[in-house]
Amino acid sequence: MTFAELDQPYAGRFADGEHRFAVRIYYEDTDAGGVVYHANFLRFFERARTDMLALFGADIATTHDAGEGTYVVAAAELKYVRPARLGEILIIVSRFLEIRAAACTIQQRVMRDGQMLVEGRVTVVFVGPDGRPKRQPAAWLEEFHSFNGASSAQ
Amino acid sequence: MTFAELDQPYAGRFADGEHRFAVRIYYEDTDAGGVVYHANFLRFFERARTDMLALFGADIATTHDAGEGTYVVAAAELKYVRPARLGEILIIVSRFLEIRAAACTIQQRVMRDGQMLVEGRVTVVFVGPDGRPKRQPAAWLEEFHSFNGASSAQ
Amino acid sequence: MTFAELDQPYAGRFADGEHRFAVRIYYEDTDAGGVVYHANFLRFFERARTDMLALFGADIATTHDAGEGTYVVAAAELKYVRPARLGEILIIVSRFLEIRAAACTIQQRVMRDGQMLVEGRVTVVFVGPDGRPKRQPAAWLEEFHSFNGASSAQ
Amino acid sequence: MTFAELDQPYAGRFADGEHRFAVRIYYEDTDAGGVVYHANFLRFFERARTDMLALFGADIATTHDAGEGTYVVAAAELKYVRPARLGEILIIVSRFLEIRAAACTIQQRVMRDGQMLVEGRVTVVFVGPDGRPKRQPAAWLEEFHSFNGASSAQ
Repeated sequence: MTFAELDQPYAGRFADGEHRFAVRIYYEDTDAGGVVYHANFLRFFERARTDMLALFGADIATTHDAGEGTYVVAAAELKYVRPARLGEILIIVSRFLEIRAAACTIQQRVMRDGQMLVEGRVTVVFVGPDGRPKRQPAAWLEEFHSFNGASSAQ
Repeated sequence: MTFAELDQPYAGRFADGEHRFAVRIYYEDTDAGGVVYHANFLRFFERARTDMLALFGADIATTHDAGEGTYVVAAAELKYVRPARLGEILIIVSRFLEIRAAACTIQQRVMRDGQMLVEGRVTVVFVGPDGRPKRQPAAWLEEFHSFNGASSAQ
Repeated sequence: MTFAELDQPYAGRFADGEHRFAVRIYYEDTDAGGVVYHANFLRFFERARTDMLALFGADIATTHDAGEGTYVVAAAELKYVRPARLGEILIIVSRFLEIRAAACTIQQRVMRDGQMLVEGRVTVVFVGPDGRPKRQPAAWLEEFHSFNGASSAQ
Repeated sequence: MTFAELDQPYAGRFADGEHRFAVRIYYEDTDAGGVVYHANFLRFFERARTDMLALFGADIATTHDAGEGTYVVAAAELKYVRPARLGEILIIVSRFLEIRAAACTIQQRVMRDGQMLVEGRVTVVFVGPDGRPKRQPAAWLEEFHSFNGASSAQ
């Protein structure tokens, strides 16, 4: 690897029709119960979704800055099955459940050594600078559908 | 008021069979979209639940420290209807949807000037130091049921 | 109290030339070490400063929204002396150390039952929408100086 | 790379006597000012220190769980020079300033494209389960000194 590559933060990848994104648990993520604070899984989900979208060519920082729009979370559901702890490495596994013109629903599971710790579903809506839903960029939608078709067909 | 009272942080209250808890929005709560970051509503919900439980005599910091148990979040659902912004005052309105031996499901709505911004449902389970569900303290259950019966009867 | 008053979140107050602001510790504030996570004191400091400025008539949400400017943190120093824990009530005691045209340095101490847990110093700079320092609104500066003169003279 | 390697989160590395750790900025890190919220740099610093210590063989999650001790932050200083924004990749560059029996002071700079955004100094103290400072494990101290000697000699 070159120096420039070594200074790149972690990026996830697609495997078997799903997106995998690893997260290490630091003190910042935990609470006095000795486990990951429940709200923080939504932060991990955002990191994984951002990475997944970037792999599809959907760079939300750029569209945000250009005033073209960004994703906002419209709904989230989480089921907490097992706790996660300091120092563990978790894998956030994400896949599309539904793709609509202005919104996507994504299943996001938190896995550790093959066991599911948390099951989440997050619906994101693409909105313009006025906060109103708008059609997701056509190139992105095409990528999402193409990937999802391929993985559904497996 | 005395000095000691003035140094007490805000506590919510019950009104019309619901618990009301006000939250002011600081920079720490917002994100670059100019709105409250979606995960932070779970933090507000925790503050409101803790306050509601304390008003019922359920002091989780004490039972936690005494090794008797504490509440963990088992499930959460959020619907984001309208954004919240810097400097606003939001009211978290909470009420029991279901009370079981070891768990409670609580509806928690985020209100601003009579409009609902976020609708949440959170299920908390009382667990012992081993992380296993256990019956909620009898005195607490009695308080919950007595309050809920009274408010349901309205 | 009226209903409207009851739905107001906590606000601090001035006493003996200092601003006092109470904070209750929730799970969200703690980490797996069983104590308040060190970075979170900066969040408490922001809440206390915002409240202190509001008492002076300096409403940063309004000037922020109006494009007139806001405060950014230019420097922060923290000394952690004793840990804080779940369920505790802490008092953030703030006072001006220095007032300049575009910046203020504020000492912020975290107290519990008369003991100091954390000692902080935070320098905030008033910046315009372009991010460049600009003179703080004259009315605010006057309030700060007037208060500080009175408290220094004590 | 193997699958197992791909599921490993990012780890930093040593270069030129310093530890480099890349961080990508997500919405969770930003605030309504459009920049990274000032307290969050302490979270990035914790991630980088944890990674640096792990590269030295100092696994704090293990010693924490084993009741042997962990690091707590005793002091932190931050100077904010330039803002960081959504989607940027920052490098946290860390190096020892001082190594004592029970404590280390570490300089942590936030860099972007060769420009320094934030300069920090963090002192961490190794404490036992009773919260009292204790000598850092001998093997760790040896590693720290050996590395620091080598880098100072450059």
